[in-house]
Amino acid sequence: MASQSPNKVSLPVIKRLPKYYRYISDMHKNGIVKISSSELAHMMGTTASQVRQDLNCFGGFGQQGIGYHVDVLLSEISKLLFSERTLDAVLIGTGRLGRAISGYLSSEARGYHLMAAFDKSPAEIGREILPGVIVRDVAELSDFCKEHQPDVAVLCIPRSGAQAVAPTLVEAGVKGYWNFSHYDLSVEYDDITVENVHLGDSLMSLGYLMRNDH
Amino acid sequence: MASQSPNKVSLPVIKRLPKYYRYISDMHKNGIVKISSSELAHMMGTTASQVRQDLNCFGGFGQQGIGYHVDVLLSEISKLLFSERTLDAVLIGTGRLGRAISGYLSSEARGYHLMAAFDKSPAEIGREILPGVIVRDVAELSDFCKEHQPDVAVLCIPRSGAQAVAPTLVEAGVKGYWNFSHYDLSVEYDDITVENVHLGDSLMSLGYLMRNDH
Repeated sequence: MASQSPNKVSLPVIKRLPKYYRYISDMHKNGIVKISSSELAHMMGTTASQVRQDLNCFGGFGQQGIGYHVDVLLSEISKLLFSERTLDAVLIGTGRLGRAISGYLSSEARGYHLMAAFDKSPAEIGREILPGVIVRDVAELSDFCKEHQPDVAVLCIPRSGAQAVAPTLVEAGVKGYWNFSHYDLSVEYDDITVENVHLGDSLMSLGYLMRNDH
Repeated sequence: MASQSPNKVSLPVIKRLPKYYRYISDMHKNGIVKISSSELAHMMGTTASQVRQDLNCFGGFGQQGIGYHVDVLLSEISKLLFSERTLDAVLIGTGRLGRAISGYLSSEARGYHLMAAFDKSPAEIGREILPGVIVRDVAELSDFCKEHQPDVAVLCIPRSGAQAVAPTLVEAGVKGYWNFSHYDLSVEYDDITVENVHLGDSLMSLGYLMRNDH
């Protein structure tokens, strides 16, 4: 388990771990029992030495000349990624994107529990966004966070809204941010963990590539 | 304009272009008239020489010792990213995520036009997902694409669905993919442009970082 590993794993390796998880889950579903580092590398578009290095960071799991047992890999990587501790999340912003993300969190995201959702619009407040999750007034956010200590805030609001709500969340001790706004929290706040999702950026890049025949 | 530039711009630069666009749009909104490469670099968390190199790929726009005029930068980068040509898009999958993305495409994404939406569920077919956009049966997808020649397909379906629908889209000549499924189209098909959005990956990375006190 990660808590027993002596060294911190580098960020690029951590960022690749979900991809390993997806590929190895698929292999497991398809009944593949063993895989070599070069086969895994080929599927993932990387090199065998990269694969070996990456998996070594987490304690290895493989044997030279034999490769990796898919079930062992899957269970070790699952332990790393999900562990026993569920992360409590609050959603800020229950517009179109917020609703979609709440559904994603409750149905597809392993290891997270959506505790509450907040919005400032009177039309949203009081609505049931998920079974048992009623949208609250964002004015209650500070008290709620102090009382329930969520681990993660999911920001599905515009940049200005995110900027306004960030001090409340940070002061209340929320450490993790899944950030769909374009407000860059990590510039202003230390000691928090932020994953930015810039939906628009990928769409702009795609547009550029399409129009310029790349 | 990009079509006049003699050399192809490298992919990492293209990927950074939307970020320049976001920061420079903000400066423009905030009334900032001029900016040096080092100020811009500081805001964006990069180096001045990186900024100069990146902007040089697109023809420069700056003057030594004077810096960049924000309005010129914004208009040149906007031309690069959006140009005059609107990209016609079709949405495949009108579940929670698809609905959110359709709203995003119609309200926030510049340079795209959602022509049509498709789903296989009888409960979805015939529903109006956006004003004037009725969800069609995915069985009509091939004929529709051959007739209307969309530029981009937005895949908001699970991996298996994406794998099933990809040959139809590629054969019909659709060249661009905004891919929320975990099916890696670019492995199987050449001569297409794919932007993958792996929502789950960022959530898994966040979880790992949170649980391991990074």
